[in-house]
Amino acid sequence: MKQHTKARILQIGAEIIHRKGFNNTGIQEILNRAEVPKGSFYNYFGSKEDFGLQIIDYFTAQFKAINSNFLEDSSLPAIERIRRILESFKEVFRANDFSCGCPIGNLSQEMGDLSPAFRAKLKEAMDDMVGMYAGLIREAQKSGDISQVVDPEDVAYFIVSSWHGALIRMKIVKGPEPLENHIRFIFGSVLKA
Amino acid sequence: MKQHTKARILQIGAEIIHRKGFNNTGIQEILNRAEVPKGSFYNYFGSKEDFGLQIIDYFTAQFKAINSNFLEDSSLPAIERIRRILESFKEVFRANDFSCGCPIGNLSQEMGDLSPAFRAKLKEAMDDMVGMYAGLIREAQKSGDISQVVDPEDVAYFIVSSWHGALIRMKIVKGPEPLENHIRFIFGSVLKA
Repeated sequence: MKQHTKARILQIGAEIIHRKGFNNTGIQEILNRAEVPKGSFYNYFGSKEDFGLQIIDYFTAQFKAINSNFLEDSSLPAIERIRRILESFKEVFRANDFSCGCPIGNLSQEMGDLSPAFRAKLKEAMDDMVGMYAGLIREAQKSGDISQVVDPEDVAYFIVSSWHGALIRMKIVKGPEPLENHIRFIFGSVLKA
Repeated sequence: MKQHTKARILQIGAEIIHRKGFNNTGIQEILNRAEVPKGSFYNYFGSKEDFGLQIIDYFTAQFKAINSNFLEDSSLPAIERIRRILESFKEVFRANDFSCGCPIGNLSQEMGDLSPAFRAKLKEAMDDMVGMYAGLIREAQKSGDISQVVDPEDVAYFIVSSWHGALIRMKIVKGPEPLENHIRFIFGSVLKA
């Protein structure tokens, strides 16, 4: 029962913070939506910052769950799985009016200068994403679809970072063009080299 | 005298918003630092949103002023001027402990979903940046340093977006590596194609 309440606070908190940002979201707003009394928040979370750090873990788990299908689908070449991951995110954003963006990118932008604890946790979360792409790039190198000359981590960092930038522009143009532009250059130039 | 007060509010507001974000910055905090009484804020700005929109114009003017030296330096090939612009921003960020990032990217991320007025103004500001790079790319195509096949606007959008993403990661690693990674891929793959 306790776990259930905590999970609900995290889920609703993640949703609101994804849309409005961390500093712009009040604990009270989350608890109202979750129908949980304020006192019980502090049974689960030491502070708003502690809550924020647990939200990051929640987002990371969500990211892994979303991509597990593609990662485990050995019927597709690794380079095709990278494309499917990016294309499927594009469709998720289309279904959400090209809003919100990546919660890890958003929080990095918002909290990177403001909290060393957020910074450390977000670095971990981003390195997790990078690790996923680097693994796929290594596989694609083995099968000859990506040149051996390329450093997998280096390219993976570029894919993740430039995707975060594309999501920023998506939020102001409210269309798929920034994501399509990203996919075009990643596959047409960066992974081709 | 009036103009002087307004300019001071804009300058100090820009500084604080660049560091802390728009929603996380109170008008009172800006006025305290500017030593301006609260009442006079509304002589210059209709609302906090109106103030934010004028801050975007302030940032755009600043961006143009920073880059005008490079843009006008016809002694350097256009492709070299693109590199100098990015490298010089890297040094600006180094001098500021790799903090803050690009104010236009930050506000797009923070406000893109929350305010149509911000969205329109930020799109204008980002298109201005893109126009600067597209102009340099067109010049570099004329002199044969970049392939004619490339669409100048398309590449310019990718440069600006992926730079914004690199700045996000810079804020959590607190070092130059994300910006160096960006410059390496832009010149090693994207502009080489």
